[in-house]
Amino acid sequence: MMHDKGLVIVLSGFSGAGKGTIMKHLLEAHPNDYNLSISATTRGMRAGEKDGREYFFKTREEFDKMIENNELLEYATFNGNSYGTPRAYVEKLINERKDVILEIEIQGALQVKKMFPDALLLFTMPPSADELKNRLVGRGTETPDVIAQRLAISCRESEIMDQYDYLIINDSLQRAVDQVHNIIQAEHFRVSRNSSAINEMKKQLKVFERSN
Amino acid sequence: MMHDKGLVIVLSGFSGAGKGTIMKHLLEAHPNDYNLSISATTRGMRAGEKDGREYFFKTREEFDKMIENNELLEYATFNGNSYGTPRAYVEKLINERKDVILEIEIQGALQVKKMFPDALLLFTMPPSADELKNRLVGRGTETPDVIAQRLAISCRESEIMDQYDYLIINDSLQRAVDQVHNIIQAEHFRVSRNSSAINEMKKQLKVFERSN
Repeated sequence: MMHDKGLVIVLSGFSGAGKGTIMKHLLEAHPNDYNLSISATTRGMRAGEKDGREYFFKTREEFDKMIENNELLEYATFNGNSYGTPRAYVEKLINERKDVILEIEIQGALQVKKMFPDALLLFTMPPSADELKNRLVGRGTETPDVIAQRLAISCRESEIMDQYDYLIINDSLQRAVDQVHNIIQAEHFRVSRNSSAINEMKKQLKVFERSN
Repeated sequence: MMHDKGLVIVLSGFSGAGKGTIMKHLLEAHPNDYNLSISATTRGMRAGEKDGREYFFKTREEFDKMIENNELLEYATFNGNSYGTPRAYVEKLINERKDVILEIEIQGALQVKKMFPDALLLFTMPPSADELKNRLVGRGTETPDVIAQRLAISCRESEIMDQYDYLIINDSLQRAVDQVHNIIQAEHFRVSRNSSAINEMKKQLKVFERSN
C-alpha cells in the first residue's frame, strides 16, 4: 500500500527524558525507514563537519532572511546561535514518501504542527517526576540550581502535553524505541493518510456498479 | 504504562474482503490481548452452542426490550433473525482495561462510533475491486446476480470509508493480521487514551516546582 506522503514526525519531551538516545537507537535499528531532518544554524562549522550533512551552515543575515521568507518550520536561539528546521528539505523528503524525524523542543513542536497539521507529535517522558530528577542528577554535569530550573521548565511544559498525539514512557530504552517505530508504522495506515488508495477503490467500484 | 481503558475495536469491510479470516488469525495469534464481543440474537440455540459463549440467546420480546432500553450498541436483522452487540458486556471488558473486538457490518460500525466516540474503526479491503470480485467468484457459493449485488453494495459502502480510522489492505493475510495488531497496540499510546498517566505526571511535577 502506498500512503499519500511521508510523515513528518516530531519527537520531543522533557529535558532528561532520553529523546536523543531513543532517536539514535531508532535510526540505527531502522536506517532505511527514517530520515533525520537537517537543521540550519548560524553557528560556525567545526572541523570534520560538512555543510548539508550535520547542518546547513548560514550567516546571520541568511538565517534572518529564511525566517522572513517563512522558510523555517521552527527556530530557536541558544547561547547566541540560532537553529531552525528548513521547510524545503522536509517537504522534499515527504513528497518522495520518506518519513522525516525532527528532534526538537516543545515550543518548536507546536510551531511545526501549525505548518504541518498532519505532523505526528510524539512526547517522551520517564515513568515519574522522581525518575526525571534522578536522571538529571545522574548525569553529574548539572548544578542543583540548573536541575531545579529544568524541573520547573518541565512542569510548565507538561501543560502542553495534551497537544501531542502519542505518549512514550521511557522506562526501558529498547521498549521505547520499538514503541516509537510501531506508532509511526501504524500511522501510515490512517484513512486520512491514504486518500489516493481510497479514491482509487471508489473509482474502481463505480465502474462495477455501472456495468450491473 | 497503564492506558485509561480497554479499546473498542470495530473491524469491518466489504463483503469478501476477508475480515472474518483476519479476525480468526488475530485471535489465534494473540489470545491474551483481545476479547471478542459476544452478540445477542433471536435465532434459536443450535446443538453444541452455549448461552453466553457463542451468543446471548434472547426471545424476540427480550431483544426488542434491549433495543428500547438502549442496551445494544448496534443491531441488524438477517433472514428474520436479529443480531446485536450488548453494551453492558463491552463496557465491562473495557473498564477492566481489556480490548474488545467487534466484527460487524459498516452501518453497525457507525452506530458503535456514535455510542463510543473513542472506538477504533478499522476498514479492510482487497488491493483492487477486481480482486474483490475474484474472491467473491472464487468462493463458488454465489450466483452472478448475488455477486453483482454485493459489488453494488460495496460501491455504496465505499462512500463511508472516510469515516473509519485505519485502512488495512488485505493482500497478504499474515501482513494484514500483523497490521491490525500493530495498529491496535500503537493506539494504546495515544495521548487522549492516557489522561491518568499525564495528569499524574503533571501533579508530580507541580510538587517539584513548589519546592524550588
